[in-house]
Amino acid sequence: MNAESDILQRIAETLEARKQAEPDSSYTAGLFHKGLESISKKVGEEAVETLLAAQQDDDAHLIHETADLWFHTLVLLAHKGLGPDRVLAELERRFGRSGLAEKAARKRDA
Amino acid sequence: MNAESDILQRIAETLEARKQAEPDSSYTAGLFHKGLESISKKVGEEAVETLLAAQQDDDAHLIHETADLWFHTLVLLAHKGLGPDRVLAELERRFGRSGLAEKAARKRDA
Amino acid sequence: MNAESDILQRIAETLEARKQAEPDSSYTAGLFHKGLESISKKVGEEAVETLLAAQQDDDAHLIHETADLWFHTLVLLAHKGLGPDRVLAELERRFGRSGLAEKAARKRDA
Amino acid sequence: MNAESDILQRIAETLEARKQAEPDSSYTAGLFHKGLESISKKVGEEAVETLLAAQQDDDAHLIHETADLWFHTLVLLAHKGLGPDRVLAELERRFGRSGLAEKAARKRDA
Repeated sequence: MNAESDILQRIAETLEARKQAEPDSSYTAGLFHKGLESISKKVGEEAVETLLAAQQDDDAHLIHETADLWFHTLVLLAHKGLGPDRVLAELERRFGRSGLAEKAARKRDA
Repeated sequence: MNAESDILQRIAETLEARKQAEPDSSYTAGLFHKGLESISKKVGEEAVETLLAAQQDDDAHLIHETADLWFHTLVLLAHKGLGPDRVLAELERRFGRSGLAEKAARKRDA
Repeated sequence: MNAESDILQRIAETLEARKQAEPDSSYTAGLFHKGLESISKKVGEEAVETLLAAQQDDDAHLIHETADLWFHTLVLLAHKGLGPDRVLAELERRFGRSGLAEKAARKRDA
Repeated sequence: MNAESDILQRIAETLEARKQAEPDSSYTAGLFHKGLESISKKVGEEAVETLLAAQQDDDAHLIHETADLWFHTLVLLAHKGLGPDRVLAELERRFGRSGLAEKAARKRDA
């Protein structure tokens, strides 16, 4: 597995450890401790920041905010006992060889 | 590279092809054609649906909405000529060996 | 009461009637019938559209989207059996004579 | 004009004064000083808090968050040199005697 593509899984593993940690031991441990409503708010805030960043011409800013958004969705999933593998599997199901890519291939051939 | 972890990159490649396609050839081609404001709205809508799903006890629903959210952030990035590799690299920078994991390791050792 | 300032209350009264109406009798009756999650999504969508409109230089567009947002918060309140009078009373409590205005007055005098 | 229904207009007048005030003289003066992106984020955040509050059975909480949302849309409008009168006029145009109410009246008569 290459270094970048498995970063989501490695974050998920770290998050799992943070769920047991003292609330004041890290930002994420504190967020887990505050619970579902606080985590959900953060996902909403980061989505707003992502789409506001997208209205500007600053790629680095958009990447930064998107990373924040993805990270906080991982926190939300972890809070529910879920991980990125489930989301990636859902995307694979929709867009993998038997999904979008194959359809696209068929379209090219047609 | 394993099948799941590179799905984000494979979606990005398909999106790149869709940017040149006829607006009515697919949902995504149509969304690219509508432009930045429409794509941004979809990111916002999917974020709202994700956080509403999180208030319920239905893991499959949350996974479904999170997949929608990630997919539409990929569309937003693609519209800007950016890909998931940039976001994953940013997460790697923050949370990789030299980031969060290392700090966690140090904490465990301490 | 002047014509404009009581429009929120008049909308609330109309909404109350729509709650009992057939789902296909109007947009709003349909929305009430779909229930809380659908109404909440609409509030989220209209908020996104409002803040995207605000990034542009088109006052009429921003006014249009803000009206949509306020309207859908009235639908949300009505779904819960609440009306704009409660929100306006809360704003009065915070910013009325005994609130913000008075504090501002004291500041000016000080 | 009754005390409650004109509170939106009175807030707008206070906001107008705050736009000229020192950034650290009040929360709102500080928000105006930070500018459009910060104000837009607050509107987004308050919308998220409103719709999360709506998922719970706590009317006072929902009223509180809706008041926050309306207040921050007034700040956004004021930043653009616009006031609630414009939004209320738009709602009047849509839902006033010549709008929704009249249509409803006709429907009842039909």
